[in-house]
Amino acid sequence: MQRILAIDAGGTSTRALVVEPSGTCLGYGHSGGGNPVSSGIEGALASVLAATRAAFATVPPEQRTVYSALIAMAGASSELPTDQLAAQLTTAGLLGELVIESDLLAMFCSGTPSGNGYVLVAGTGAVAARISDTKLQTVSDGVGWLLGDEGSGFWIGQHVVRAVIADLDGRAPHTSLTAALLAALNLTATEDRTFGRPLMQIELIRALYKMRPIELAQFSPMAFEAGEDAVASGIRTQAATELAGTLAAVRLSAEHHDEPAGPLVVGGSVLRALANTEPLASALREAAGNSPPIPVQDGVVGAAVLGLTRVGIDVDHEIFERITRGVAMLRAGT
Amino acid sequence: MQRILAIDAGGTSTRALVVEPSGTCLGYGHSGGGNPVSSGIEGALASVLAATRAAFATVPPEQRTVYSALIAMAGASSELPTDQLAAQLTTAGLLGELVIESDLLAMFCSGTPSGNGYVLVAGTGAVAARISDTKLQTVSDGVGWLLGDEGSGFWIGQHVVRAVIADLDGRAPHTSLTAALLAALNLTATEDRTFGRPLMQIELIRALYKMRPIELAQFSPMAFEAGEDAVASGIRTQAATELAGTLAAVRLSAEHHDEPAGPLVVGGSVLRALANTEPLASALREAAGNSPPIPVQDGVVGAAVLGLTRVGIDVDHEIFERITRGVAMLRAGT
Repeated sequence: MQRILAIDAGGTSTRALVVEPSGTCLGYGHSGGGNPVSSGIEGALASVLAATRAAFATVPPEQRTVYSALIAMAGASSELPTDQLAAQLTTAGLLGELVIESDLLAMFCSGTPSGNGYVLVAGTGAVAARISDTKLQTVSDGVGWLLGDEGSGFWIGQHVVRAVIADLDGRAPHTSLTAALLAALNLTATEDRTFGRPLMQIELIRALYKMRPIELAQFSPMAFEAGEDAVASGIRTQAATELAGTLAAVRLSAEHHDEPAGPLVVGGSVLRALANTEPLASALREAAGNSPPIPVQDGVVGAAVLGLTRVGIDVDHEIFERITRGVAMLRAGT
Repeated sequence: MQRILAIDAGGTSTRALVVEPSGTCLGYGHSGGGNPVSSGIEGALASVLAATRAAFATVPPEQRTVYSALIAMAGASSELPTDQLAAQLTTAGLLGELVIESDLLAMFCSGTPSGNGYVLVAGTGAVAARISDTKLQTVSDGVGWLLGDEGSGFWIGQHVVRAVIADLDGRAPHTSLTAALLAALNLTATEDRTFGRPLMQIELIRALYKMRPIELAQFSPMAFEAGEDAVASGIRTQAATELAGTLAAVRLSAEHHDEPAGPLVVGGSVLRALANTEPLASALREAAGNSPPIPVQDGVVGAAVLGLTRVGIDVDHEIFERITRGVAMLRAGT
């Protein structure tokens, strides 16, 4: 009985999968954010447990136990009280041990059964890694909104709002982003001025500082919706340049170590939106080598691969494909 | 009896001055941060009152009343409960009304008795204004660390730490800023790695996220101490470019309005440090016109000028010089 539980706990949602050593998927469930940094420890614990219960609920009663569990979550989330979590999962049906792995490694393993290659993810944050022997060998960026995440959704969203604020006081070119942002926040564009500033700039500043900084990521789609607007196009090109640089840093490191290249796994909404923008498009082609980049939705398949490997299963192409298909079918059903 | 109280309430310190219509300064005092946004409303009220009491303490007992009071503080600080503040100042010796003015206007008025000209301030934040008729006609930037303040102490400090983090994962050139920042935070430079990252990068990231974002401004001096280091020099040049752009925006606006140029008043530690860096050096020369830029330390002289003007005094050069000399002498004595 080597049935395992694989969990991918992300900032906005958590996914759980019950899977057999053959790769046959028995149950799948999802819930809210499971990252202790963004959801708090209580919230993260609750989400992990909710996704687990949802997954078990779709499994026949006599199979509602697992031999071990693997949770993929952001590396910085080592604050999670593992004992408490293990205890809760034990009440839910966990018989053996609980292991925590990197969410970035799980993303990579969602795309390929190979233990070597690259992964580049750009959603709210942005990060790349060289994977070697199914381990993170070199990680580039992914250091959060204040210190990096260059070219990420936050980065683009912040550049959008800064460009608009600068447009409003004449420090930067006019851009159609201004009207779009004012409209999105239900602010009226007027000629009124007070204290030497446009009234709408003051209202905009007030509205934006009411948000948590990370929430500026919500404005990143505006950079794509603005089409040929020169400011928006400049932000897109700069983001694509930053992401190409983030990927280049881990490729340089791999060449330095004389390691074989491998598949390139890619994820995240921003990466999808920028994949054809130069210089990122070229960087993706070069890093992917002969086969195209492999897009993945999240790390739940990879969490299953890592969890099965952990209990001694050699996850070959056949098992990998069975997990991938199983997750897709269970998702279609939920 | 038109003796007034002039207060300049800033983010890190608050200054109070008791001054006569002739410009004769009777008392001066200072205290901690008086900005409600950074010090909280209670803290700001306490600082304003403490500076006021300290100023009155140096005035002969029979002169410890003032006809009116003017407080200069950041425009966004309109959250201050003025009634509560007026009540407290009344117990301290205020007989008449309390007026709140822009700290930026007070900075300008600290440098010149003219009612027209420019002011550029770069400390933790960065802002420029065209002053016309002793009013803020056009303000550029000064929108805070998340949305602007380009070229400010925060901006430079954040660029320093981002450059170091990127150096550590190979996304950006090596820089001497890295050793300097690690030393400043008592972190040991080692070759140890974990989860695909240098251990010292993980420790650095953890230390930096423990701070409030605005505290990154403390690292801005490193960009100046690093001398010819290419990364540091690049940050300085970019900051000088941003500040030149911030000043240019209010000059364009003045030309647009066909207004006469006027003196240029400058303030802030970052502006002092960057004043000879191009393209800011040229921008300062052009904006200042025939006379050199006028450096000011803070807005307390300007608060006195604005307070006296408010009660009907025509503050001419003679009165202005008397206030300036009086503040300098009282400061030397405290």
